[in-house]
Amino acid sequence: MKKLLNNPADAVADSLAGFALAHADLVDVHRDPVYVSRKDGAVNGKVGLVSGGGSGHEPLHAGFVGDGMLDAAVPGAVFTSPTPDQILPALQAADGGAGVLAIVKNYTGDVLNFETAVELAEAEDLQVESVLVNDDVAVEDSLYTAGRRGVAGTLAVEKIAGAAAARGADLAAVADVARKVVANVRSMGVALAACTVPHSGRPSFDLADDEIEIGIGIHGEPGRHRVPMASADEITQALLDPVADDLTLVPGDRVLLFVNGMGGSPLSELYVVYGRARRLLEGRGVTVSRSLVGSYVTSLEMQGASITVLRLDDELEALWDAPVHTAALRW
Amino acid sequence: MKKLLNNPADAVADSLAGFALAHADLVDVHRDPVYVSRKDGAVNGKVGLVSGGGSGHEPLHAGFVGDGMLDAAVPGAVFTSPTPDQILPALQAADGGAGVLAIVKNYTGDVLNFETAVELAEAEDLQVESVLVNDDVAVEDSLYTAGRRGVAGTLAVEKIAGAAAARGADLAAVADVARKVVANVRSMGVALAACTVPHSGRPSFDLADDEIEIGIGIHGEPGRHRVPMASADEITQALLDPVADDLTLVPGDRVLLFVNGMGGSPLSELYVVYGRARRLLEGRGVTVSRSLVGSYVTSLEMQGASITVLRLDDELEALWDAPVHTAALRW
Repeated sequence: MKKLLNNPADAVADSLAGFALAHADLVDVHRDPVYVSRKDGAVNGKVGLVSGGGSGHEPLHAGFVGDGMLDAAVPGAVFTSPTPDQILPALQAADGGAGVLAIVKNYTGDVLNFETAVELAEAEDLQVESVLVNDDVAVEDSLYTAGRRGVAGTLAVEKIAGAAAARGADLAAVADVARKVVANVRSMGVALAACTVPHSGRPSFDLADDEIEIGIGIHGEPGRHRVPMASADEITQALLDPVADDLTLVPGDRVLLFVNGMGGSPLSELYVVYGRARRLLEGRGVTVSRSLVGSYVTSLEMQGASITVLRLDDELEALWDAPVHTAALRW
Repeated sequence: MKKLLNNPADAVADSLAGFALAHADLVDVHRDPVYVSRKDGAVNGKVGLVSGGGSGHEPLHAGFVGDGMLDAAVPGAVFTSPTPDQILPALQAADGGAGVLAIVKNYTGDVLNFETAVELAEAEDLQVESVLVNDDVAVEDSLYTAGRRGVAGTLAVEKIAGAAAARGADLAAVADVARKVVANVRSMGVALAACTVPHSGRPSFDLADDEIEIGIGIHGEPGRHRVPMASADEITQALLDPVADDLTLVPGDRVLLFVNGMGGSPLSELYVVYGRARRLLEGRGVTVSRSLVGSYVTSLEMQGASITVLRLDDELEALWDAPVHTAALRW
């Protein structure tokens, strides 16, 4: 294992320490328990947004803390859910008096620990709504999930709900728009090569030199099938078709197309996938009106990519376009 | 070789096609010859900025075309200089009547081909100044270079000169500020694992499982020495000390600290390097007043990172802070 790390046990803490220094204008990083909150604390009268999950998916979620997106993020150990005692102070820190929305990726540990933290918060009279993200069409249940997994579509939920909150929507309305995004977003990914969790030191799964895993999860958990290495065009179609079919896209729909890198694939390759995915969508009569290409919801240094499609309407498009100022997303 | 590619010979063209579609609001991608220009063409009365070089370093340079940075970029084949017949139309496209600054990374092929193109442009009465970037302190000459190589510091030259041009500075003044950045910026990189050029299909160099290359070039060319794998803290110090020494940083200096990923190292590791580099600079009495962490000047999927330090003054800091709107850098 060759990584830019010190003691593998300190991987998350060391990375967060650097993150805190690099973005001291945007965030505070708390150490015991570990969570990240926006610099100036909760915004008075604004609905707070909190998300979290295992580390190893950077910049998700801490990189999305700031104006127009999250108010707090809760990083667990690598590929390990954060604990309720981390999540609770994050919920509290995000509360500006208008309640808090918790955005939870659908993994069993995340769901349970967020539920516990939300109960504790409610016992202290904090008003919390939760929304579950389950955009991954690859598998119905999995090693870590009942139902579909939550993957890169989470970025869209956080961005759009964050914009709604920034515009002054109340908690019910912010939760509604978050659920509207969940209802309209689907993703699927591929791994060309595995990643290595620092404290294990071994690749999280084995792929032969001529093999890829279609439908990979963001923790390297199994997807739909292993197939021989194929061209970018073939791989893109194997990801895009299930996404578009599950969304029941019809001619005239317009969408956000988000091609996400898993961490170890260069940007140049993501654009190859984007180009093919776009042509496939256009072949279905679908208009791509918004785009995002980059490594935002990663799996350490895994080589591969995922495709996320979000069906847009005027409301979602305007909220996507609204200003955002975070470490990883800014416009 | 597993990459998200179709025919390796089409790697650059396929990637640029996707890039053009994803950023149609920002750029036009021209095909024969290949270059990238800003969407609305040259800005009347503004000094134009052009850069270019081999592909494989994305988002450099095409990702930096837009308001406040480059007016045109010229991508060659992977790790191969663009030809004069590509560079000439880019220079012409960038000309808004106030002349053009060519920003050239110091590689022999780039230098020769830009020189030829500039001569051809001048023969057509275009006013062109050139600035050579040579920020890599690792080696004095190299396989591809007389003198030091130009690496990630190029981003700072393009950003700051771009801001000066956007503010209406004339060609001599834009060239002066670009040279001021060159005089005050230094970089050094490390590779943990090699990258594979698509049309070769083989890793560009061999590193043993327990070996890293300190001072690596952005084409995988040799650095200062191969050493056994070390901790992030040790590696960071091996990069930062030569950079800081070459810059002759003294207590009271303030700097931009830019930790750049080589393409295959995850963001979480870059923040570990950032944290250590920052503490080392602060240990020298140097203030880090601006920061950038991410994979901006890459070597395909190479695992590793580079550290760039730019000594700032009020002028450079204000130009760094000025608005920029490109595919890869935006604030």
